Amino acid sequence: MNYQIIVYIVGWILEICSVLMLVPAVTALVYHETAGFSFLITIIVCSIAGFVIIRRKPSKRAFYAREGLVTVALSWIVLSITGAIPFVLNGSIPNPVDAVFETVSGFTTTGASILADVESLPRCVLIWRSFSHWIGGMGVLVFILCLLPLTGGYQMNLMKAESPGPSVSRLVPKVRSTAIILYKIYMILTLLEIGFLLAGGMPMFETLCTAFGTAGTGGFGFLNDSFASFSSYIQIVVTVFMLLFGVNFNVYFLITIRKFRPALLVEELRYYALIILVATGLITWNVHHLFSGIGTALKHSAFQVATIITTTGFSTTDFDLWPGFSKTILVLLMFCGACAGSTGGGIKVSRLAILFKTVRKEIQIYLHPNAVKKIKMDDKMIPHEVIRATNIFMVVYIFIFCGSVLLVSLDNLDMTTNFTAVAATFNNIGPGLSQVGPSCNFGLLSPFAKIVLIFDMLAGRLEIFPILMLFVPSTWRKF
Amino acid sequence: MNYQIIVYIVGWILEICSVLMLVPAVTALVYHETAGFSFLITIIVCSIAGFVIIRRKPSKRAFYAREGLVTVALSWIVLSITGAIPFVLNGSIPNPVDAVFETVSGFTTTGASILADVESLPRCVLIWRSFSHWIGGMGVLVFILCLLPLTGGYQMNLMKAESPGPSVSRLVPKVRSTAIILYKIYMILTLLEIGFLLAGGMPMFETLCTAFGTAGTGGFGFLNDSFASFSSYIQIVVTVFMLLFGVNFNVYFLITIRKFRPALLVEELRYYALIILVATGLITWNVHHLFSGIGTALKHSAFQVATIITTTGFSTTDFDLWPGFSKTILVLLMFCGACAGSTGGGIKVSRLAILFKTVRKEIQIYLHPNAVKKIKMDDKMIPHEVIRATNIFMVVYIFIFCGSVLLVSLDNLDMTTNFTAVAATFNNIGPGLSQVGPSCNFGLLSPFAKIVLIFDMLAGRLEIFPILMLFVPSTWRKF
Repeated sequence: MNYQIIVYIVGWILEICSVLMLVPAVTALVYHETAGFSFLITIIVCSIAGFVIIRRKPSKRAFYAREGLVTVALSWIVLSITGAIPFVLNGSIPNPVDAVFETVSGFTTTGASILADVESLPRCVLIWRSFSHWIGGMGVLVFILCLLPLTGGYQMNLMKAESPGPSVSRLVPKVRSTAIILYKIYMILTLLEIGFLLAGGMPMFETLCTAFGTAGTGGFGFLNDSFASFSSYIQIVVTVFMLLFGVNFNVYFLITIRKFRPALLVEELRYYALIILVATGLITWNVHHLFSGIGTALKHSAFQVATIITTTGFSTTDFDLWPGFSKTILVLLMFCGACAGSTGGGIKVSRLAILFKTVRKEIQIYLHPNAVKKIKMDDKMIPHEVIRATNIFMVVYIFIFCGSVLLVSLDNLDMTTNFTAVAATFNNIGPGLSQVGPSCNFGLLSPFAKIVLIFDMLAGRLEIFPILMLFVPSTWRKF
Repeated sequence: MNYQIIVYIVGWILEICSVLMLVPAVTALVYHETAGFSFLITIIVCSIAGFVIIRRKPSKRAFYAREGLVTVALSWIVLSITGAIPFVLNGSIPNPVDAVFETVSGFTTTGASILADVESLPRCVLIWRSFSHWIGGMGVLVFILCLLPLTGGYQMNLMKAESPGPSVSRLVPKVRSTAIILYKIYMILTLLEIGFLLAGGMPMFETLCTAFGTAGTGGFGFLNDSFASFSSYIQIVVTVFMLLFGVNFNVYFLITIRKFRPALLVEELRYYALIILVATGLITWNVHHLFSGIGTALKHSAFQVATIITTTGFSTTDFDLWPGFSKTILVLLMFCGACAGSTGGGIKVSRLAILFKTVRKEIQIYLHPNAVKKIKMDDKMIPHEVIRATNIFMVVYIFIFCGSVLLVSLDNLDMTTNFTAVAATFNNIGPGLSQVGPSCNFGLLSPFAKIVLIFDMLAGRLEIFPILMLFVPSTWRKF
């Protein structure tokens, strides 16, 4: 294990973190908030600590899959702890476990909050929560890759470990250029949303918070009722952009290089659209009697489907009050998640497609033992390793899920709460149902349950393996 | 597709069914119950219909995996329908959907009942419900294989399709002898339990019902409170025998041929024992404050763990009132299930062991890419096909599970009810939680939900593929 390079990159994480905190610091300056000092202190401490670490350049630069996983996992843990310091310092979340929960929820783009009253928070704290979604959505290591000229072609191991989906590919031969392209697309889409929101009369501060949350498919709101009190125009803009950020960024890359037809024919995109249409249709049919007209029902259904499938977690209505059928669809969408290579969480549409195709193939083999069938996606054969990795992912996913529900159940809350609390955090969504539903928060859980869910949020965002590796003894053995 | 042989075997199923119904018919005679006429009529109709069918011997006897699956699926459907006729005829369950639900629940050894008051039923009906557990537990086609001299070595395809577990092996070279050995062991264990129960002062009729239910890991009771009112001795005997019937019958076969050491070293058996000990220990710790002493708590915990892990479904107490942690353990055990090659349902301990080992191997490969690791069980390498089949099983299992919960949720009951109703039927357990808990029944569900659960019970008992094949169009295509 090359510890030097791991420590070196973690040092950079501290530097980046202090740069990112300039956003809330400046916000505090603009609104004359004293809470801004907490960010200032953290910036100073982090930048000095980071500087000390990165001054010692690593002699060995070799960087394998193992180092990639460990670096990503440790980076995210360091990021979560440093990001939580201001919350404790300025007293907005005095309890350290709660502060880390909130920060992890931010960076992992979960959006599950332990706060009952967000409206009383200073604006610098609110913008920091939302901005952490934006950074976490595309990935902090992808961000570092944009800046840091790491040589030797090892960087792909970092990108692979942080990016979601069954297989991560470079858009262009150079990893650094790929990272830059991804952040450019991300930036443009965010600016577009900011434009649309401002056009709808939303004030600048709220617009920024909303855009950061939507882009990262986070879900922290700045009003206690999330998006219920906004105009239909704003709700529709947010619906559309949530769905856009749930799309595989390869599609946007294809569009930027003017390959429009291939972009629209991406298989995952078509399944994603199909699931959204069917789910929205069924829920609209199921809930239309609760609303004044079919249009309102459609608007709310589409918003809730978009917020759950993209794992954002905003809400315009308390869907915990909806009929069982609609709630079940939403819970299933929690697991489905968005496209691979998007900022969304969950299992991912492409993984489910691969699993579905594997089953279809096996049934064909059962019936016609001599038929040779290959599993294809976008007219390309899916490599055997990807299929195997997908299966393994599912199995580990289920084991961790069940273990988490069991540990959370020690709090003695009802089954729906336990189940959806884990589903909502492990899939990086935000609100669950029952006592952690859209009108409630995670504050009522015990510190132990919160630690379990912190683990789940990190494991969910990093797709399990980086975090899991930290707990395998042989990771730390020299060889 | 060789339709002739399929029809021929279904004809035999009708014959067998009419022979099996002699048990309730004789019971009716003993207790002078007029409800017995319903069985008599069914016996006459079935035996004539069966006789007409089996008179035409099939010219082609070839029998492949495909025919095996379809035959088993159709046999179970025919069995379920004919078995339900007496319920409708004698008026104990007038509604045909309910009657089929109850019969399927019997043969699949689920034990989920739509009846609120079983104590008012005639004894011939009660014994038929319990006896269907006994037949379904070991399998009706395994029973036919004992009797029917099918030639040509094709019978293994029938046995494979009906027997539970990731891989089915012959105990001895001949399939028929294997079937006979299995039924002999089954019979001896059942007689042993009958002896122990009679020794505890249980009357003959109740003893038979209990023994049939335990042996098949069914769960139909003959008292409204299941086993709550019986003595501790009876409850302990039932606990022990439930656990014994959840053991892989290979273990008993090894014992009969005096291979005691290998029998005790079977890996699946050790995991099964470990899970039971850990689960019982944790639940006892979690519920001890609800009972007068630690001994009583242990007795109830052990009974509930045994009844759920073996997927029997009896109960001595309303565990829906237990704390969340205990309930979550029980729900997880619902999915775990008993050993492969036992009469129990669920995913099976050996499947979970295979999945667990696969994950461990993959993590090792991640860390040491050049290490060649094989997955072993009982010191033998697990064939690649078994691992693949296990993965596929899990994926299809999850798809069917989610689909069923979605369809059942149309009834608009609470989430815990929907979730555990499917868990309890798909894993062939019996009672779930909340509105389908141990003190409730499945009568409140809509006919549509009942049909979904009937499908789940059959799919669960036959481990999905035979039933699934019926819905694949190309199964029926000639080739």
